[in-house]
Amino acid sequence: MELLKRRILEEGRVLSDQVLSVNTFLNHGVDPSLIAAMGRTFAERFRDLNVTRVLTIESSGIAIAYATAIELGVPLVFARRRKALMNEGEYFSERVPSFTKGIVTDIVISRELLKPDDRILFIDDFIANGDAARGLIRIVERSGATLVGAGIAIEKAFQPGGSYLRELGLPVLSLARIASLADGQVRFAED
Amino acid sequence: MELLKRRILEEGRVLSDQVLSVNTFLNHGVDPSLIAAMGRTFAERFRDLNVTRVLTIESSGIAIAYATAIELGVPLVFARRRKALMNEGEYFSERVPSFTKGIVTDIVISRELLKPDDRILFIDDFIANGDAARGLIRIVERSGATLVGAGIAIEKAFQPGGSYLRELGLPVLSLARIASLADGQVRFAED
Repeated sequence: MELLKRRILEEGRVLSDQVLSVNTFLNHGVDPSLIAAMGRTFAERFRDLNVTRVLTIESSGIAIAYATAIELGVPLVFARRRKALMNEGEYFSERVPSFTKGIVTDIVISRELLKPDDRILFIDDFIANGDAARGLIRIVERSGATLVGAGIAIEKAFQPGGSYLRELGLPVLSLARIASLADGQVRFAED
Repeated sequence: MELLKRRILEEGRVLSDQVLSVNTFLNHGVDPSLIAAMGRTFAERFRDLNVTRVLTIESSGIAIAYATAIELGVPLVFARRRKALMNEGEYFSERVPSFTKGIVTDIVISRELLKPDDRILFIDDFIANGDAARGLIRIVERSGATLVGAGIAIEKAFQPGGSYLRELGLPVLSLARIASLADGQVRFAED
């Protein structure tokens, strides 16, 4: 998606060989018109898959997932990171490491929000190692629902998360695939 | 907002005299058409205030704030809860207690995302004690920006957060004001 790649080149900040900050337009500051365009692009790509629910994880994927869900006319669920007041038995839960937080967290989804006949489209802002995605996919499997596709805003193609999704045989659309952040430079992968 | 009140009565679960769960349509499962209607309602109410930026806090306010921002045609910022990899000097930071988390967290906003000439509309899914709102307002003050209004989906009118906002002289729109959750019953305040 040229619009996103241009914004990454103009405003993205390479903080290390591993970390790209897109704080000004994607995951802290948010440009709604860019997000809406991303939602339309995902909806167009996955419209034929009879998606019944869009799934993401708090927080940075929520706006993009919402923009996709409203285009598809289906509900959205965002997985939560476990908090004190949550009642054990009501939730599917998976423990996942978090690259950006540097800690382990439990991600949870209420059992009433994933049904065996659901066809799930996973949407997220970034995929790197794919740890959160793996946890979400385990939860989807346990619920009996079917994961039918994955839409990612920015894939760090030098980390294994995106390949993991493709190896599941899943249709995956990454709007910007980054081949390298070496030497403070963003280099995109060929599409 | 009748649409929201009806959903609260139909699907909300009163977990205690203090806690209402709206997991199925607002802050875990999300009904995009309801959120879009809320965004339009807030945009209509605050359109004359020359808002330059919508502000919320991760995670549950993000979808509503996005829906409002896209209607107003302005960018969105969501305050983050501090994480390991954040560079101190780049952020405004305030320590706030969290009612639902039962802990204290630091909320942060990048200095580059709040400017002295900004006119800020605060949007959130819930207001109860208003601790997070107070923290955000302190950050807005420190940045030199002007808070011009507040839009809240669900106000627990038996807790002081909403009154605090009104006592600042701020225009406040709460789409559903709950007078009481006693005896497992949702009772709305008169508008």
